[in-house]
Amino acid sequence: MATIYAVGVGPGDPELLTRKAERILRQADVILAPISRPGEASVALDTVRKFLDERRQEIILHQFPMTSDRTRLIPAWQEAAALIAARVAAGQDVAFITIGDPLLYSTFIYLLRIFRETCPQIAIEIIPGISSINTAAAAAGVTLAEAEERIAIIPATAGMDKVVEALVTYDTVVLLKVKPLFGELLEVLGRMGRGQSSVFVERVGSPRQKVLTGLAEMAGHNPDYLSLMIVKQPGSCL
Amino acid sequence: MATIYAVGVGPGDPELLTRKAERILRQADVILAPISRPGEASVALDTVRKFLDERRQEIILHQFPMTSDRTRLIPAWQEAAALIAARVAAGQDVAFITIGDPLLYSTFIYLLRIFRETCPQIAIEIIPGISSINTAAAAAGVTLAEAEERIAIIPATAGMDKVVEALVTYDTVVLLKVKPLFGELLEVLGRMGRGQSSVFVERVGSPRQKVLTGLAEMAGHNPDYLSLMIVKQPGSCL
Repeated sequence: MATIYAVGVGPGDPELLTRKAERILRQADVILAPISRPGEASVALDTVRKFLDERRQEIILHQFPMTSDRTRLIPAWQEAAALIAARVAAGQDVAFITIGDPLLYSTFIYLLRIFRETCPQIAIEIIPGISSINTAAAAAGVTLAEAEERIAIIPATAGMDKVVEALVTYDTVVLLKVKPLFGELLEVLGRMGRGQSSVFVERVGSPRQKVLTGLAEMAGHNPDYLSLMIVKQPGSCL
Repeated sequence: MATIYAVGVGPGDPELLTRKAERILRQADVILAPISRPGEASVALDTVRKFLDERRQEIILHQFPMTSDRTRLIPAWQEAAALIAARVAAGQDVAFITIGDPLLYSTFIYLLRIFRETCPQIAIEIIPGISSINTAAAAAGVTLAEAEERIAIIPATAGMDKVVEALVTYDTVVLLKVKPLFGELLEVLGRMGRGQSSVFVERVGSPRQKVLTGLAEMAGHNPDYLSLMIVKQPGSCL
């Protein structure tokens, strides 16, 4: 039976692909890669291109606009789901590729929901990928948690009150989507005594990777869209 | 310069090793695998054995007792650090292998701290691994987070008050080390209306993998040591 594979390709370094992801990408009939603008490069596709055979495999770039406007998003998800379902019905295996992990803040989640509602009998296999969180910790040499420690993972855009609550309560706080609130975050982290226990990582696993340790190094930086911060309790070792 | 590689080998399935981990394990001179009892098998070593060449590579099983008694743990860490440092000083590359990710609840964290204190000039490279959290979500088909959602990761042994606080506050709660408190956890989850929005996964990525969805399926189960739960808000789709 033809299958939809949701393949996490990791943070952007082809070496951080799993062996399973590589095998599935070599075998699939169709590869669908998300992009946010027409004509834009796909980080996920660039990561896996050397495993593909463009003479044999169909490669589709599908646009998912970078917006929270659901009247624009829903048609893009439905169109992608229809494209995929048609190929599966024709007996083709389709690999939807996504940077990081398919179940952690990925576009695939919306497609999964559509498939469950509209064609629950379709075969879906999810291949976990190395998340940018683990890769950023490795690049910065920062521990995520040990023993009984607790971790919170929060998009900064969820609200500064939620960020503060997590910083007070959790041993390690991973802040995602830091770009739009970067200045405000630096101020809050400074006020909460995290000047030495914060690290910023952007474009992790790519040639453009940057690691900034401590708030002094971060001040004045203009973050990339693909960036995150790992914040520990004051006085803890990074 | 000889290097210490901390290699995350993923949850236990050789296909969920990254291509980078495979390359480093094939090249390393020495492989050090943790075990918790003498004579015990190492899940990490079993995962990577087919990439090793026992005629050329030194393979060391080192015991880290499964205890919180630091008078027993500290000597085990120091002995492992000394074993590794001696080989690096002799020009050998050493790969310390760990299931999951080396910076997420792994024994490697203690060694990293010893190296930073006692020989800060030693070269250490950390290779992120697929965490059991991402693999469990993929196996169960449960989303970890989307959009502005927030995730808490908590060892259940941190205290039931902390578990309850996270369940109230966070969209997704990942509970680790659930074995010693399994009965009590099921009771708390039932009381908090999570009967349908909890999933239990043990030995993920291994032939002994088990996924139990909803509290009714979990009742009466005797969990394996390598098990976790993913809990969503009441009424949310798994």
